[in-house]
Amino acid sequence: MPGIQNFKFVEEFIPAIGSGELLLKTLYVSVDPYLRGKMATTHDPFEIGDAISSKVISEVLESNNENFCKGDLVIGYLDWKEYQKSNGSGLMKVDPGGAPLTAYLGVLGVTGLTAYFALSDIGQPRSGETLVVSGAAGAVGSIAGQIGKIMGCRVVGIVGTDEKKDLIKRKFSFDEGINYRAVPDMKRAIATVCPAGVDIYFDNVGGEISDGVLANLNDNARVPVSGAISNYNDMEIPNGPRVLPLVVYKRLLIRGFLIADFASRFDEGRKQLLTWLNEGKITYSETIINGFDNLPQAFIGLFEGRNEGKMIVRLL
Amino acid sequence: MPGIQNFKFVEEFIPAIGSGELLLKTLYVSVDPYLRGKMATTHDPFEIGDAISSKVISEVLESNNENFCKGDLVIGYLDWKEYQKSNGSGLMKVDPGGAPLTAYLGVLGVTGLTAYFALSDIGQPRSGETLVVSGAAGAVGSIAGQIGKIMGCRVVGIVGTDEKKDLIKRKFSFDEGINYRAVPDMKRAIATVCPAGVDIYFDNVGGEISDGVLANLNDNARVPVSGAISNYNDMEIPNGPRVLPLVVYKRLLIRGFLIADFASRFDEGRKQLLTWLNEGKITYSETIINGFDNLPQAFIGLFEGRNEGKMIVRLL
Repeated sequence: MPGIQNFKFVEEFIPAIGSGELLLKTLYVSVDPYLRGKMATTHDPFEIGDAISSKVISEVLESNNENFCKGDLVIGYLDWKEYQKSNGSGLMKVDPGGAPLTAYLGVLGVTGLTAYFALSDIGQPRSGETLVVSGAAGAVGSIAGQIGKIMGCRVVGIVGTDEKKDLIKRKFSFDEGINYRAVPDMKRAIATVCPAGVDIYFDNVGGEISDGVLANLNDNARVPVSGAISNYNDMEIPNGPRVLPLVVYKRLLIRGFLIADFASRFDEGRKQLLTWLNEGKITYSETIINGFDNLPQAFIGLFEGRNEGKMIVRLL
Repeated sequence: MPGIQNFKFVEEFIPAIGSGELLLKTLYVSVDPYLRGKMATTHDPFEIGDAISSKVISEVLESNNENFCKGDLVIGYLDWKEYQKSNGSGLMKVDPGGAPLTAYLGVLGVTGLTAYFALSDIGQPRSGETLVVSGAAGAVGSIAGQIGKIMGCRVVGIVGTDEKKDLIKRKFSFDEGINYRAVPDMKRAIATVCPAGVDIYFDNVGGEISDGVLANLNDNARVPVSGAISNYNDMEIPNGPRVLPLVVYKRLLIRGFLIADFASRFDEGRKQLLTWLNEGKITYSETIINGFDNLPQAFIGLFEGRNEGKMIVRLL
């Protein structure tokens, strides 16, 4: 479990920019669970002592690059710094007129794209099927549930408080919610609200919550897995009911993915999500915390369930 | 665990055939692990008191059906009976000149097709990748290993005796074998013979053997699962190391399948397998047991590791 003692603030001079470079001022920082994985020793880790980086929306303060002008708003993987320079590679200009700016960190960004490809590509919902989403009040889960509804599914969300259970039904149009802390037997709870079984389980949580869902899967069910937060901080893989017997009995498809696997199709996904957003078919929640100094607390808060929807830090 | 006491022999008169019907005499019966699944209460079970059925090669003794003549050899899902009638539906004529007759119960039948689609469709081997096959000396596993070699993989087989370990290297051209009973630590044993990790794990076994392989999977590894024999007889799903954390960390694809899922492509698969067979690129083992009365023992023997390759009962 990460703590405040793992972070250090460092003061530097604002860099001078050279030929082809930009000076960027950070406006919004996306704070995401996957960053925890990059603090381990595997999978392209952050280096200790280097700045953490994530999706950031910045304003161009100065430009020596013909592709960008002073005043442009850009999004890209950038350092957690108030000011930084860039050579422009990997930056995308965003149009503040098309959608609220922070939507590009959420429903139109990795969050929305994760939900979109998990369902459209791996889950492949058919009308009338039952979709269960864990972490349903979270940034990805809440969008996944709404996409499931658009595609004609009965949608059930798993959450950790009664407030979130109300929220997903009221705000995100889930058919049913389950507060896993309030039910003694997840397997039975799922069976009760999913009398026709579960055809798609979009797992954002892992662990014992998933066991109850997996036990209710129908034949040929699909299980896209985009994150197992509850295990991020475990060094040893814990035990649980074996999955392979179910995989063969029920001919399951279980697939883990990184959103980067779908990079070539981001435009397609973003266009569809923007259409749904403008049609009012998708809504989203943000938790916006003010101030660069609060970045570590915002990150730690992800693992304490403190956010409702996408966690964003706004620089003042 | 099935026992001899679960079977009963019943004597009946040889049936008279009506219009459009055939009288069939059983020549060969395919005896397969999946039949155990049909003795449970789920998934299209056998009815207690009815005859068991599986793939059978029969000779047409009498025909009132214009599509079949006396003397034709046919294959189909038929009852475990010495004589039976059929209306011809679901029967395929086999040409005894193209390949040995029993090959249609093995390498050219469900066994070979299972190995073929597990690899070509789910495993998708690329040259230079490492393929691990469990149950490697078995009917499906031994063909899967050879297909992996044809496709340019380094192929490692897991077996249960030193004899089978020698066999898969000598007869089925596996690069390496592991006798799981002779190694104290499967995870380390796999790491030793797969220094570049495992890209495809074709699981025919499940259980603790699989745990050691799963721990060595590379990013983007594929895990086709065609059977979990070691768990068929368990009523409760046992515990083991959780798989979903690995699925997301390593972006795994795990897919269970029934060969029936690929029914529309059987001709394609059979044609490819026949080509490899005639080119001498695939060889196979059979355990042929003589006598109708030995069908129950043949079936029980599957779960005691008594067969080498495809288990077939030949009627005398």
